Amino acid sequence: MPNPLTHFQNGRPQMVDVSEKTPSLRVARAEGYVKLTPEALEALESNPKGDPLAVAQLAGIMGAKQTANLIPLCHPLLLSHVDVTLERVNSSIRIEATVKTREATGVEMEALTAVTVAALSVYDMLKASSKALEISGVRLLHKSGGKSGAYDVESVLPG
Amino acid sequence: MPNPLTHFQNGRPQMVDVSEKTPSLRVARAEGYVKLTPEALEALESNPKGDPLAVAQLAGIMGAKQTANLIPLCHPLLLSHVDVTLERVNSSIRIEATVKTREATGVEMEALTAVTVAALSVYDMLKASSKALEISGVRLLHKSGGKSGAYDVESVLPG
Amino acid sequence: MPNPLTHFQNGRPQMVDVSEKTPSLRVARAEGYVKLTPEALEALESNPKGDPLAVAQLAGIMGAKQTANLIPLCHPLLLSHVDVTLERVNSSIRIEATVKTREATGVEMEALTAVTVAALSVYDMLKASSKALEISGVRLLHKSGGKSGAYDVESVLPG
Amino acid sequence: MPNPLTHFQNGRPQMVDVSEKTPSLRVARAEGYVKLTPEALEALESNPKGDPLAVAQLAGIMGAKQTANLIPLCHPLLLSHVDVTLERVNSSIRIEATVKTREATGVEMEALTAVTVAALSVYDMLKASSKALEISGVRLLHKSGGKSGAYDVESVLPG
Amino acid sequence: MPNPLTHFQNGRPQMVDVSEKTPSLRVARAEGYVKLTPEALEALESNPKGDPLAVAQLAGIMGAKQTANLIPLCHPLLLSHVDVTLERVNSSIRIEATVKTREATGVEMEALTAVTVAALSVYDMLKASSKALEISGVRLLHKSGGKSGAYDVESVLPG
Amino acid sequence: MPNPLTHFQNGRPQMVDVSEKTPSLRVARAEGYVKLTPEALEALESNPKGDPLAVAQLAGIMGAKQTANLIPLCHPLLLSHVDVTLERVNSSIRIEATVKTREATGVEMEALTAVTVAALSVYDMLKASSKALEISGVRLLHKSGGKSGAYDVESVLPG
Repeated sequence: MPNPLTHFQNGRPQMVDVSEKTPSLRVARAEGYVKLTPEALEALESNPKGDPLAVAQLAGIMGAKQTANLIPLCHPLLLSHVDVTLERVNSSIRIEATVKTREATGVEMEALTAVTVAALSVYDMLKASSKALEISGVRLLHKSGGKSGAYDVESVLPG
Repeated sequence: MPNPLTHFQNGRPQMVDVSEKTPSLRVARAEGYVKLTPEALEALESNPKGDPLAVAQLAGIMGAKQTANLIPLCHPLLLSHVDVTLERVNSSIRIEATVKTREATGVEMEALTAVTVAALSVYDMLKASSKALEISGVRLLHKSGGKSGAYDVESVLPG
Repeated sequence: MPNPLTHFQNGRPQMVDVSEKTPSLRVARAEGYVKLTPEALEALESNPKGDPLAVAQLAGIMGAKQTANLIPLCHPLLLSHVDVTLERVNSSIRIEATVKTREATGVEMEALTAVTVAALSVYDMLKASSKALEISGVRLLHKSGGKSGAYDVESVLPG
Repeated sequence: MPNPLTHFQNGRPQMVDVSEKTPSLRVARAEGYVKLTPEALEALESNPKGDPLAVAQLAGIMGAKQTANLIPLCHPLLLSHVDVTLERVNSSIRIEATVKTREATGVEMEALTAVTVAALSVYDMLKASSKALEISGVRLLHKSGGKSGAYDVESVLPG
Repeated sequence: MPNPLTHFQNGRPQMVDVSEKTPSLRVARAEGYVKLTPEALEALESNPKGDPLAVAQLAGIMGAKQTANLIPLCHPLLLSHVDVTLERVNSSIRIEATVKTREATGVEMEALTAVTVAALSVYDMLKASSKALEISGVRLLHKSGGKSGAYDVESVLPG
Repeated sequence: MPNPLTHFQNGRPQMVDVSEKTPSLRVARAEGYVKLTPEALEALESNPKGDPLAVAQLAGIMGAKQTANLIPLCHPLLLSHVDVTLERVNSSIRIEATVKTREATGVEMEALTAVTVAALSVYDMLKASSKALEISGVRLLHKSGGKSGAYDVESVLPG
């Protein structure tokens, strides 16, 4: 049985050795939601100019680049593509991030970090209207490339 | 009516002017959850030595210090205390972060950032066992200090 | 005569000792220009949605927070306000940044860094249309607070 | 006609997908100037030991490495060479930076960032003598490698 | 005779040009020691739960990733493996770090940085018990890969 | 008896709560050595122009500003002064760093970090001449300010 906690070797955390893994195109896509309150929805709609979601979108892209500085055992990676989208779905903001690399390890963490940093920025932009916003449903939707094969699940709006 | 989107002035985002706000003790507490799968639970329990949650706990503390670098309009702040706890609750990991400052603006974003970075690290530590983990229920629990008054809600395990 | 190179003591660079300086409100305002080519102007105008200047504006705000990491002898500072504006003036983009602090040293470098990082981002956004853009006229416009007194000059479009 | 604003896709900014671009040697060279005042020139000349330009030179090299953290849509890149020179030309400091990579995208932004961070450091070192220094003439001089072909212009001292 | 100070070209520091060097597996291993006092040893032993060395171990791994941001002329590198161990040897903590890359330049500095950041963290964790701890014996133990050949020395507990 | 491991509370690491501590002037001074080999000494002496120690000196100052990003449980601090000196003593480079703050906690870690980052840079500058350099004798020399009283020891060249 393969070690299910690959980050641990002899009981201590390490940055996994990927020296022998083959570089190839790897893609990951993740989603997440910020549940808004009526006050936050109103604030978002009444904003005459400027766009809080545009700020969060950029924060997500820049956040993806900080992944290896934030997640202790993540490998530093060159990202060949980062795309983050935000859209309103019912009374939530849905965030989706796609990240690609041509390195020897996957970019799930980069996609999830992009989503959560964008979500935190949405909270920051709207917190003066309401503090009861909630970040939820942060999940990996797709992963391809590398030896472990593809992973795909459907997007689900959290209950 | 006060501007509900204080980060926007004349339609453009800015770092809000807090020059005239009075420094005082400000506290924020936030929570969040990582829903585990049976495979992830088993991996967590069978880990003979070392502790994935200890890695995530430290990641959360260090993440709190990166808040102003991640969230575009956040003020840089000196944090006088950061505490992050992780515990298993049913089949989830519950994360709670408490942050304090004596500056002129609050630390909600720092507490929420600590929670989400810790949650991302939990995902990273356990992703070899299962990719279907989900980060959810990231919310502010408590805020005190400053002119806007206290905010308190109960912890709720997400459905 | 006071030492005109305060960053040097006995011939070696140092971070100047401001331990005995009194914290007070300090403000700095700086400007800069990116001279566009006809191709870049056309690209900027024909962009149906989205706004390259909004990206640069945010880059300038976030850049101000990185000043002490970029400029070797700058003191780390808590910024209480950062505002960056970009507007088209003739065939240039004019950038203006205002920064405030309540610390013991001034924020000229933070205002100038915000302007130049925003200018570099304008270049980055438009470089696919033309590489012959030029950053120029980056200057301090205003400084107040602290013992050295106020400094004010007029904005000038570079020749 | 190719999209002149490659950073925008469907109206939103993104980090351009370079997954299919071929890694190859890419070089960029940029220049910029800091116009000094008589007071700043005198301070620079009378500095008996130590060298403000040496500090700025190092700041430029280190700044080049921060490009992807500063410019929102820049790809993180491994730089295989960074060289920054500063010399006095009339009453200006001329800064030139050369950057190389073997990655899938160019290094214009890294060369321009090196120049501007060095220029900001020159300002910082000399600002106690005079605040009326001006950064100008920041331009790309040379670019080679990649599919878009070479770009070369002459160095010009700004008017 | 080859230039013994490769970082200097014409008397000025530069990031050495490695554009023509061939990427290959490169490994470096370094060690270092923190000499404890009796008070620090007692504090370390009496700590009922939690483990100061686990904090330092993680700090070392994360520190390795910051090498190019700390050491002015270091090339940014993708690290394919980082492992840090801490163990008590007599009245010292011995730290060993192994770093691998598949890039065009070696990782000695990354291994040495991992060791020293871990050592600083040990100091930080134990400084409330005693300030007279000493970091010493920080040395390269092993280097392989690249054209300059292998380097190997024995581990030595400092006197 | 006070808790000798203040960073641990209930067995888990935390950033100690200094919310109730009084800001005051705090100073720390640390030293460290890089033992050179004959080859490294010769390389250092024969360097016709430029100065490896000047690079290391600047690296130390900039490193001090990164302390809270490197040491997991360190409080972010505004530094009001950083001075780093390097001098040759016998066949070693002696490094000394002095750091001041007016915050609520001490700057021992900042002084020690400045010394070690400068030492690592010395290694980096000279490693082409010899890999057998050793960093040793990194110790706190002086600490004052705060409630725990002053600490002073003599500088000692390591054996």
